[in-house]
Amino acid sequence: MVRYADILQARDTIGGLVRKTPLFTSRTLDDRLQARCFLKAENLQRTGSFKFRGVCNRLSHLPPKMKEKGVITHSSGNHAQALALAGVLLKIRVVVVMPANAPGVKVRAVEGYGARVVRCENSMRSRETVCGKLVRKHGYTLVHGYDDDLIIAGAGTVALEFLEAQKKLDFLFSPLGGGGLLSGTVLAARGFDPPCRVIGVEPELADDGFRSLRDGRIYPSDYPDTIADGLRTSLCQRTFSILQKGVDQIITVSDDQIVRAMKFLWERMKLVTEPSGAVALAGMMARQDLLAGKAAGAIISGGNLDLDSFFDEYFRRIHR
Amino acid sequence: MVRYADILQARDTIGGLVRKTPLFTSRTLDDRLQARCFLKAENLQRTGSFKFRGVCNRLSHLPPKMKEKGVITHSSGNHAQALALAGVLLKIRVVVVMPANAPGVKVRAVEGYGARVVRCENSMRSRETVCGKLVRKHGYTLVHGYDDDLIIAGAGTVALEFLEAQKKLDFLFSPLGGGGLLSGTVLAARGFDPPCRVIGVEPELADDGFRSLRDGRIYPSDYPDTIADGLRTSLCQRTFSILQKGVDQIITVSDDQIVRAMKFLWERMKLVTEPSGAVALAGMMARQDLLAGKAAGAIISGGNLDLDSFFDEYFRRIHR
Repeated sequence: MVRYADILQARDTIGGLVRKTPLFTSRTLDDRLQARCFLKAENLQRTGSFKFRGVCNRLSHLPPKMKEKGVITHSSGNHAQALALAGVLLKIRVVVVMPANAPGVKVRAVEGYGARVVRCENSMRSRETVCGKLVRKHGYTLVHGYDDDLIIAGAGTVALEFLEAQKKLDFLFSPLGGGGLLSGTVLAARGFDPPCRVIGVEPELADDGFRSLRDGRIYPSDYPDTIADGLRTSLCQRTFSILQKGVDQIITVSDDQIVRAMKFLWERMKLVTEPSGAVALAGMMARQDLLAGKAAGAIISGGNLDLDSFFDEYFRRIHR
Repeated sequence: MVRYADILQARDTIGGLVRKTPLFTSRTLDDRLQARCFLKAENLQRTGSFKFRGVCNRLSHLPPKMKEKGVITHSSGNHAQALALAGVLLKIRVVVVMPANAPGVKVRAVEGYGARVVRCENSMRSRETVCGKLVRKHGYTLVHGYDDDLIIAGAGTVALEFLEAQKKLDFLFSPLGGGGLLSGTVLAARGFDPPCRVIGVEPELADDGFRSLRDGRIYPSDYPDTIADGLRTSLCQRTFSILQKGVDQIITVSDDQIVRAMKFLWERMKLVTEPSGAVALAGMMARQDLLAGKAAGAIISGGNLDLDSFFDEYFRRIHR
């Protein structure tokens, strides 16, 4: 069970590796919501997402024998990139199992940080089988994206930093996918500033977390089609328990609301965010009713997306 | 003539209005250039560009009588947006003359900040005529984008902040258009850290500044077609004199190099920048020969551009 003290310890452990990401404010946003709003730009974290914090904490606690052998994960997203860079910095071999249909840009990013990529077939079963074989053969340690106390404690340092920089937040909005970031947020807020209400925000099209907490049982995420591809994962028992006890509310937002929040971040805040990274802000923007006169924070969780088509257009304009 | 003391004073004058923009570093960039590189994200300045600093300084020094009457400018770019917000904050009426072909997004931005937009025909002559008429009729003060000591001193606070946060830079790269930002950069560097070499970077397709300083006479900018639309302006006598005395070198970069730097900023740094905002980094990336083992800074000057087509694509994906 993760405690507040574990988050404080994680902050010290990873302090030399992670960036203290800046908070941003916007007069336009404040005017629109009639509130004082703060955005924590975790898209500016190393490797482009908050995931880097958890894996740094996880790898820092690996016993020497396991460090020597290396770590493995199966992921095609931000967790893979985060693990790859953390491995380089901490001198631990990293292997990432990626499905054949993983976008080239993501494979190159992981390889660019210095990890080894092993391709598998396009099913979760193939990912797990290939991963299992390599674990048995080489003695790698499997590092899960969120079903892990040290990963959750690392993720909790986002909210801890947030609240230390901006005390007395009435509300803190955090995205909900597998529940690692939201669990860490809940624990940090409860420890640092108990009255702060933590609101988890989930895409309407991937509302398994909302339903799970409403009904008191974990529903698996069923290949949802939301544009927020980083939030398609299911809760695990570990995150479910923390959220059941500590989260104040889960709200859902449409893909349309997500893209509008994303556009606001790009246009007005000049921050490149992926759709998942804009979900907490979308939730904040949807709940003006709660916020009037209050201080509210939202975690902008990540900024990795494929920009090739956007820049292709720019290049076309030059070479016309 | 602007002096270093004017920049120090400008910093105090505008301190309560402008953002202290963050510096960013990148392991990838450092590895590629074999140098320690620092990027000052002035795209995160209020209104999305460094221009906000100069106009805040300018408007703060307006005598009460002129404050009452209001100010005017003709511009379709960052200067107009900056003036509009500075006017609101300092309670000064702002009128912006914009050509009929100015993009709707820019007109809306200026109006959104609370300025009045007057449309004119698509020629510089029409802009100046309409502006002149309004000045005569209403007694507005014309605020030029860079041919103004107080604007230059305000622009110089970018480099001052840069050098205070990161002492001992060997090189500082700054974009060159009309020369306001580069003049301020030169004066700040000479005053704060004389050995720091200031390098102006200009688009190859708008190299009037490079040629002017080479030949010792001002060449007008001849409607250049570079993608860096913020840097199409000509030097004025005021900026020309400062640069002649103080800038170490002017280098040029191709539109292709500009877009590549811009893509790096978006993909790796998660910073939305306009093409002009990426020009200094493009120059830095082009001069690896100078930089090995050195500390170098680049000013990311602005982030305003029309993102509608990018987000149209995203919306299409949702509503498919």
